[in-house]
Amino acid sequence: MNLRAKILGLEAGGKFVVVLNREDAEDLTVSSLERVRMKKNGKEVIAIVNTTAKLIEKGTVGIYEEVKNSLGLKEGDSIDVEIASLPSSVHFIRNKLAGRKLTYEEILEIITDVVKGRLSEIEIASFVTALHAFGLDLDEATSLSRAMVETGSTLKIDKPLIVDKHSIGGVPGDKTSMLVVPIVAAAGLTIPKSSSRAITSAAGTADRVEVLMPVGLSLDEMREVIEKTNGCMVWGGTLNLAPADDMFVRVEHPLSIDPLLLPSIMSKKKAVGTNIMVLDIPTGRGTKVKTIGDADLLAKDFMELGRRLDIKVNCAVTYGEQPVGHTIGPALEAREALGVLTGVAKAPDLVDKATDIAGMLLEMSGRKNGKQIALEILRSGKAERKMREIIEAQGGNPEVNPEDIAVGDQTYTVRSNREGILLWINNVSLVETARLAGAPKDKGAGVYIYKKIGDPVKKNEPLFTVYAERNVKLQRALDHLEKSLVLGIGERMEMLIHEVRERPVTRKTFMLER
Amino acid sequence: MNLRAKILGLEAGGKFVVVLNREDAEDLTVSSLERVRMKKNGKEVIAIVNTTAKLIEKGTVGIYEEVKNSLGLKEGDSIDVEIASLPSSVHFIRNKLAGRKLTYEEILEIITDVVKGRLSEIEIASFVTALHAFGLDLDEATSLSRAMVETGSTLKIDKPLIVDKHSIGGVPGDKTSMLVVPIVAAAGLTIPKSSSRAITSAAGTADRVEVLMPVGLSLDEMREVIEKTNGCMVWGGTLNLAPADDMFVRVEHPLSIDPLLLPSIMSKKKAVGTNIMVLDIPTGRGTKVKTIGDADLLAKDFMELGRRLDIKVNCAVTYGEQPVGHTIGPALEAREALGVLTGVAKAPDLVDKATDIAGMLLEMSGRKNGKQIALEILRSGKAERKMREIIEAQGGNPEVNPEDIAVGDQTYTVRSNREGILLWINNVSLVETARLAGAPKDKGAGVYIYKKIGDPVKKNEPLFTVYAERNVKLQRALDHLEKSLVLGIGERMEMLIHEVRERPVTRKTFMLER
Repeated sequence: MNLRAKILGLEAGGKFVVVLNREDAEDLTVSSLERVRMKKNGKEVIAIVNTTAKLIEKGTVGIYEEVKNSLGLKEGDSIDVEIASLPSSVHFIRNKLAGRKLTYEEILEIITDVVKGRLSEIEIASFVTALHAFGLDLDEATSLSRAMVETGSTLKIDKPLIVDKHSIGGVPGDKTSMLVVPIVAAAGLTIPKSSSRAITSAAGTADRVEVLMPVGLSLDEMREVIEKTNGCMVWGGTLNLAPADDMFVRVEHPLSIDPLLLPSIMSKKKAVGTNIMVLDIPTGRGTKVKTIGDADLLAKDFMELGRRLDIKVNCAVTYGEQPVGHTIGPALEAREALGVLTGVAKAPDLVDKATDIAGMLLEMSGRKNGKQIALEILRSGKAERKMREIIEAQGGNPEVNPEDIAVGDQTYTVRSNREGILLWINNVSLVETARLAGAPKDKGAGVYIYKKIGDPVKKNEPLFTVYAERNVKLQRALDHLEKSLVLGIGERMEMLIHEVRERPVTRKTFMLER
Repeated sequence: MNLRAKILGLEAGGKFVVVLNREDAEDLTVSSLERVRMKKNGKEVIAIVNTTAKLIEKGTVGIYEEVKNSLGLKEGDSIDVEIASLPSSVHFIRNKLAGRKLTYEEILEIITDVVKGRLSEIEIASFVTALHAFGLDLDEATSLSRAMVETGSTLKIDKPLIVDKHSIGGVPGDKTSMLVVPIVAAAGLTIPKSSSRAITSAAGTADRVEVLMPVGLSLDEMREVIEKTNGCMVWGGTLNLAPADDMFVRVEHPLSIDPLLLPSIMSKKKAVGTNIMVLDIPTGRGTKVKTIGDADLLAKDFMELGRRLDIKVNCAVTYGEQPVGHTIGPALEAREALGVLTGVAKAPDLVDKATDIAGMLLEMSGRKNGKQIALEILRSGKAERKMREIIEAQGGNPEVNPEDIAVGDQTYTVRSNREGILLWINNVSLVETARLAGAPKDKGAGVYIYKKIGDPVKKNEPLFTVYAERNVKLQRALDHLEKSLVLGIGERMEMLIHEVRERPVTRKTFMLER
């Protein structure tokens, strides 16, 4: 059937979608969410059908951007449209829905079709939900990791040993990577670090690093930086490593489920050629992993999956019940990380965590006394010099100093109304405060915490300062603080956590950060 | 934030969706698939957000039809847009994703938000998949049925006893309802029959009936017909009974799963006030339910769900391995049904099935010898007279005779190339043939079968005739027949079903017809 193109001027989120008039759809014997094969200019795409009774006239086909660009269409073009059979990948998804285990071939076909935009949101959502509900075993996780590498770009660097670190996220203010990368690169290891932006947090590593240097590098630019400096800190979003994951995250986030955690992380490490890595699993109330037992089980799975992918994985189960360091929000965190590197800022927990992880990487690479080496590299200023090399190689200002970094000029400081010990910090509420103040979009927005758990607090002493770039956002954050307890001060832990007087609505907090 | 409306001229499938420029979305701290509250003209809706980098400019908001109509918007209108919190229903869906059982209150809120267009396709797909994967128990099925009634229209008729019949579908050519309704209505029972159109079959009851009379009645018109004639045969699509089901079907169909089968059927019966019903469960290869054991288990669940909803349910497990009667396709089937009522057509299996089910309804209503009464009503012409009454009341021509019904004039007859017994019929392939020939859209398209299982066949004898309204569709059906075996003729069943020489791709056939 020949139909005239009507360009809609809308994106379909990476999927190939067209809109047909209901009568044309019936003539093609195709229903909504079934597929058509569209041919034009010697090119061909399979697109998912939406139907409408009136808004697209009979004889025309509404075209989303993805199809327009792929076929090189313009308004009014005549296109050949025919019914397409169901992709095999949909049959394989149905197999998983029947509770069956998927083979590598089946998974590769599903992932390929996800990347090529051939599966609808319903099919992807159902696949992800089925993986969550039925579980995926390590064979399937291995297949998913391999298929995600197979369908994306890969980094080839001519180095004998490539190391990496990754955190499964969930603890605020975690700028550990900004110390680990320069430390291990200064020690002579190669570390091609790519990071994500914040999804539900106040800052992702890419957001923090971007305060100091450009992060949107191409794969070739990334390789040049690594060849020059041994390391890099770039945003994964432009690298096309394991692109299927972006589609999965789009589905997982609204559902608060994360069945693809293992393959998502490991595929990106495999794609950059990692041989050795340390996985950080922040653990405790208010993080993704609540108990040490759960953390150990997760570690076991990551290590076994690593073994199957030829990546040596050790895990660091770390304390996650409060922010790392004193800062939350891109600019505040970049300032703190640079401050620790230059020796002007004090953040013992951050230094501890970074040198623990750097030390593990050094020992896994054959050195002895890894933590001592890492501390020495940090104290001697070698890590700072390496950081400035990387900043320069990525196109930032290598002379930057912590005090040059602008933070929001709209501030409000919360003070203690009593004396005591800081007993607990509500990570989720703190992140919410920073986000309402504008983070991560407003780089200068965030929170500076003066006290950490166990610190003594005097009456009227400052507890934390909220930073914002715009007063209206500061107000929004303060409105939230009116209704929410961010931290607890007392003589000792109180026994009653809370009363349950009516059926509680469980608002599960969930951080999807990989 | 105030944004200017840009009307997109597209429907979002019943959901409330808007498109924001990425920067505006970031300023609102709302991500793709999160929600905004939009206010205009004293009205308010919650809409799901899509974001785009370029196609919607900063300061404007792309508006789908559902939002446009609900707020009464026009191009360029200024609208107040603010971030909305996550609906509780999403938390409840997440509870189901965690494998927990849902309460009535939780289910009612989910169903309400489905009907109001507040849930995204991803959330609905995930809910349906979770129901499929974790299962739903009878408490949840009862809650879903009640909630689906609660959120739709209901029919109130002042009759002491209301009966109904329903088939779970999956057997081609099943025009049983077109006999059962006039038989039991002629016997004095009240039967407010609503039916669906074909989803994956060659004809739904609404498609068949429409050949004889209008079926798109309003709830008030339906009531008038019933008050006049004791019965009706209308399309459910315009009645708004259990409207949530339409959204669920949209998701279930591409996934080939059907976890809402029980609540979907029972809610629609409850909504028309049914007290007594017979559920037909066609059973056998090529139908939805493959074994008699499975049929019995399903029957048990329907009967128990009925008990909880105050509907007395008996089930008829019926033979489904071949079409009912000789015809498939709307006009051919209408002709056959009317032919049996007027006594000119012979279809012993159809008569048998219809009088069995009508007889069950009569006995459940207190009569004795139900099947004999039903046969007598049919033979005496009372059923035909009742049918003509209903046709007239619904606005059709009560004088219509079978031979007046037009069928496709493009035909092709397949003949036997050997002598033997008709051993099996492939229902799925036969339906595919009828659909390729144009059914259900082309009412005159379909298949007429001369032989049924067990019939002796001579060489060169006609087996079936394909009917189409257009030659190109006839050709399409014939191309399919070239590649596909529709029936098997031989002396006895052959032992080898098929050889498996390489890993088989299981193409599960699935009929979603309720």
